[in-house]
Amino acid sequence: MDYSLAEFLAVALEAAKCAGEVIRQGFYQTKHVEHKGQVDLVTETDKACEDLVFNYLKKHYPDHKFIGEETSAAFGTAELTDDPTWIIDPLDGTTNFVHGFPFVCVSIGLAIGKVPTVGVVYNPIINELFTGVRGQGAFLNGTRIKASSQNELLKALLVTEAGTKRDKSTIDSTTNRINSFLFKVRSVRMCGSLALNLCGVACGRLDLCYELGFGGPWDVAAGAVIVQEAGGHVFDPSGGDFDLMARRVAASNSHLKDLFVNALKEAEGSNLS
Amino acid sequence: MDYSLAEFLAVALEAAKCAGEVIRQGFYQTKHVEHKGQVDLVTETDKACEDLVFNYLKKHYPDHKFIGEETSAAFGTAELTDDPTWIIDPLDGTTNFVHGFPFVCVSIGLAIGKVPTVGVVYNPIINELFTGVRGQGAFLNGTRIKASSQNELLKALLVTEAGTKRDKSTIDSTTNRINSFLFKVRSVRMCGSLALNLCGVACGRLDLCYELGFGGPWDVAAGAVIVQEAGGHVFDPSGGDFDLMARRVAASNSHLKDLFVNALKEAEGSNLS
Repeated sequence: MDYSLAEFLAVALEAAKCAGEVIRQGFYQTKHVEHKGQVDLVTETDKACEDLVFNYLKKHYPDHKFIGEETSAAFGTAELTDDPTWIIDPLDGTTNFVHGFPFVCVSIGLAIGKVPTVGVVYNPIINELFTGVRGQGAFLNGTRIKASSQNELLKALLVTEAGTKRDKSTIDSTTNRINSFLFKVRSVRMCGSLALNLCGVACGRLDLCYELGFGGPWDVAAGAVIVQEAGGHVFDPSGGDFDLMARRVAASNSHLKDLFVNALKEAEGSNLS
Repeated sequence: MDYSLAEFLAVALEAAKCAGEVIRQGFYQTKHVEHKGQVDLVTETDKACEDLVFNYLKKHYPDHKFIGEETSAAFGTAELTDDPTWIIDPLDGTTNFVHGFPFVCVSIGLAIGKVPTVGVVYNPIINELFTGVRGQGAFLNGTRIKASSQNELLKALLVTEAGTKRDKSTIDSTTNRINSFLFKVRSVRMCGSLALNLCGVACGRLDLCYELGFGGPWDVAAGAVIVQEAGGHVFDPSGGDFDLMARRVAASNSHLKDLFVNALKEAEGSNLS
């Protein structure tokens, strides 16, 4: 078991590095093309990275299953079974990519028995490679990482995102939650990549993270195991168990989960008022 | 004139690099000390950097004036005169520094005749050095930069901050503005350093930036000239002239200023409703 997890990680790492090279090339190109071209470049880079990662992993593991953003856009999100399933976001932070904002990454997760088991998140622009393997710890560029030791909500740094939905109800809920949290935490960050936000909690730069209604399991499959292996918690924003397919996630260090869940409940309450 | 501006830049660069080294050392230390110690470390790093930069600049320019965050905390913000005045934030992004979030910088600006004339903003963690000299362009790590060419508000990426004030009126205004903008721009970022936000507009990663009620002129003196020399605009959020001492700033590329000012006015309107 240990041997094969190490092998899964090695194969995922290789795939992530190849995809990272494609992302890096596109990233420095995107500012030099017209806007129509920028959108095409995102699609092309996204597709090229997904093909690359899928083909590489399939060659090594022809019997494994695969869930990815691009294939799901085409065929609908596959059901998650107990089989080993690679869950891939070839390019997380696409808005950042278009604008040349350096928070972009490839995210490769492996779930076994529906449990996130191997995770690789690689930002090729600022050269940060996060990895986690169930039972074997989490690492940033090869150095072990742990979630923060902060135990006061008022001193915690929270990260979330505005998301992509622009209907009034979603936007009001989003800003009401931020409003509620600004009274309770030290400050709020929004940097445009959920996978990197989770890794930020894992390495203790950020203490708390939540997001509701994001794209799909590919945004969180790798980050979840990296947070857990760094000693943090990953859970549903209600405080219940994390569901990889639910498009709802919260993460914290080991001290703040209960305080964070209460604050999330109060934030939802204020949305109803 | 040109010669002395080039010399001012060279001296400011040298000071920024020395301060950057102090920031870098503190940054990698801060996660390993207890929380009380973290705050001390910020204060110590802030003070050490300011002393270092002030002493270095004063040695070269004994007749120039100086405004800095630490000295202003002690003696009140000095009045800005027409004399050459160095305006220094030794450590912008102090919350990020405490948490180990890699958006921190030293910001050194020189105003002459109250006009931002030389600017150096250096992030020593991800190694980005932004410079600008009035009439001579803006650069990132030696490569010329320009603001974005985006001319549609709906496709623009906006950056702002939650600030540090936590009274209800300020928080409500802050989140109401964000709410208003989420209907009008592509997305919103909050990364914790106004000086770096301005540099993000200068290099075209970000299209729009505003902040109200920030610490002082040291947050914007260097960034303002870098944005302007990259072809962007720096102005009061009302659309009026930028006032270095007003603790209010907006910045945009060359196309979006009028649309942005209108959107800012509408955002203020929605705060009153």
